Amino acid sequence: MNKITNLFKIKYPIIQGGMIWCSGWELASAVSNAGALGLIGSGSMTPEILQEHIKKCKAATDKPFGINLPLIYPFAEDHINIILKEKVKIIFTSAGNPKKYTSYLKQHGITVVHVVANVKFAKKCEEAGVDAVVAEGFEAGGHNGIEETTSMVLIPTVWKAISIPLIAAGGIASGKAMLAAMILGAEGVQIGSVFAASKESSGHENFKKEIINAGDDATKVTLKQIIPVRLIKNKFFNEVQDAEYTGASIEELKKLLGHARAKKGMFNGDIDEGELEIGQVSGMINKLKPAGEIIKEIMGEFVDEKMKIANNDF
Amino acid sequence: MNKITNLFKIKYPIIQGGMIWCSGWELASAVSNAGALGLIGSGSMTPEILQEHIKKCKAATDKPFGINLPLIYPFAEDHINIILKEKVKIIFTSAGNPKKYTSYLKQHGITVVHVVANVKFAKKCEEAGVDAVVAEGFEAGGHNGIEETTSMVLIPTVWKAISIPLIAAGGIASGKAMLAAMILGAEGVQIGSVFAASKESSGHENFKKEIINAGDDATKVTLKQIIPVRLIKNKFFNEVQDAEYTGASIEELKKLLGHARAKKGMFNGDIDEGELEIGQVSGMINKLKPAGEIIKEIMGEFVDEKMKIANNDF
Repeated sequence: MNKITNLFKIKYPIIQGGMIWCSGWELASAVSNAGALGLIGSGSMTPEILQEHIKKCKAATDKPFGINLPLIYPFAEDHINIILKEKVKIIFTSAGNPKKYTSYLKQHGITVVHVVANVKFAKKCEEAGVDAVVAEGFEAGGHNGIEETTSMVLIPTVWKAISIPLIAAGGIASGKAMLAAMILGAEGVQIGSVFAASKESSGHENFKKEIINAGDDATKVTLKQIIPVRLIKNKFFNEVQDAEYTGASIEELKKLLGHARAKKGMFNGDIDEGELEIGQVSGMINKLKPAGEIIKEIMGEFVDEKMKIANNDF
Repeated sequence: MNKITNLFKIKYPIIQGGMIWCSGWELASAVSNAGALGLIGSGSMTPEILQEHIKKCKAATDKPFGINLPLIYPFAEDHINIILKEKVKIIFTSAGNPKKYTSYLKQHGITVVHVVANVKFAKKCEEAGVDAVVAEGFEAGGHNGIEETTSMVLIPTVWKAISIPLIAAGGIASGKAMLAAMILGAEGVQIGSVFAASKESSGHENFKKEIINAGDDATKVTLKQIIPVRLIKNKFFNEVQDAEYTGASIEELKKLLGHARAKKGMFNGDIDEGELEIGQVSGMINKLKPAGEIIKEIMGEFVDEKMKIANNDF
């Protein structure tokens, strides 16, 4: 179909975001089996757990799948060794310098994609030799770029700056948004939030309910002085926000953030005290569905919208 | 062509944002003469100056044009009286309650559009009887919604919530972005930044240069505790940002903001001490052009992109 489907040998140019606490082998294999690219989110896994998920994912699908690896994660090198050992052929790296591992991974025959939030890093990725770039807009859930560039601006500016294929992320949960992203220059889309709320997501049921009940104003980016992160505006969020605006030091903010807040919220289901990382697009997610159904609906709407334009129907 | 072109009796579904200090009669008439809808930005004018601009705009074009009116502006009522007296037939209201003046204006045969940044206010507009809604995303320049909802998410969520026509604003300066916005549900687009940097803009040459030289990371939203506003990150911006993060009170922030900062920057050209309100999309604006040429280029690209999709060219 295009450069992205050819690169990953997939049917549809849709990549499921490798989100922490949500993207285990069940979700990744369900997505890959439906013709898109599933990613295991290794950022919340120990090397042993990652290995187990890779093995289970291989057993559950014969289609390509990949791993999302945040490079600042303490287990990053151990994870890479597991990925090489298990011969997974696709890695999406994020949160770190793309020059650090790209050539090493490519020497081992791995397709490498790096996630960026601005033009400067997109160019750095191209220099580092990655195969494609994910440009993730401000509307995306979880960790976020300090520039706060939105998908509507980020996609065309990155597209203009690089010549390798571009995948758009942030604010996409429908075929219309997918088509909009592709008109802006993307050749594929990475979709997170709607899969976090899917049947196969390993996120806690309470977290999925929060996503489904979220309105257009349910999330916001906070912790801008440490690492900006988009969260549902729950009790924990309000405490952080208040601390930031009353002049809390970075040490005080780190103390408030504490340990394992994301696990508490997203995996253990503590919707008040936990960190609930999700995209702004959760305002458009109203039902828990199987991943395969989500992909079918998005592709159906994508094709319908293309036809409407072809028929000049607006 | 569609509901928006019919509503305003214009050729192209493009509305020029009625920006303070940039949108006088020269810009509004140039835009209207080129087949789009020009707006005089009354938010930086006294009633006398507004009347003068309306008279000059009438003399410069026989096409429809309108007025942008921020409802929180102290001269709002005087402005309305001038607009009625001069028989201008289109008003875009913003920054205030759409219920306050809409029925009064409509009784006088005026087409009323209100600018919103979230679903709740879009519904309120529909109830108030406005003719159309502008949904302005977080990427837009100047005053900004506290929800920080981006165009990619705001356009489809507002589209779903209302049945009156929708105009998208924020992040749009190209035919591709215009088509993307229309796929997401808009029937027209409101475009600001690129017109602020146009030949006919009354903004200062120094301000126009700043827009043209801006990269993708040049702007940010600040003053979130008073009224969030997107600015170029200059010396003044940095002072405000530092004050916010060291726990400055609202009074201290207001004192720092002081008086006539926007005029100082945008109209008088003090690029260090002035407030330079502009959209994130300024990273894509690289040349000062006449307004008519901008509209021609945007419409050309819009039609080309539609053809590409019709021919399945991606």
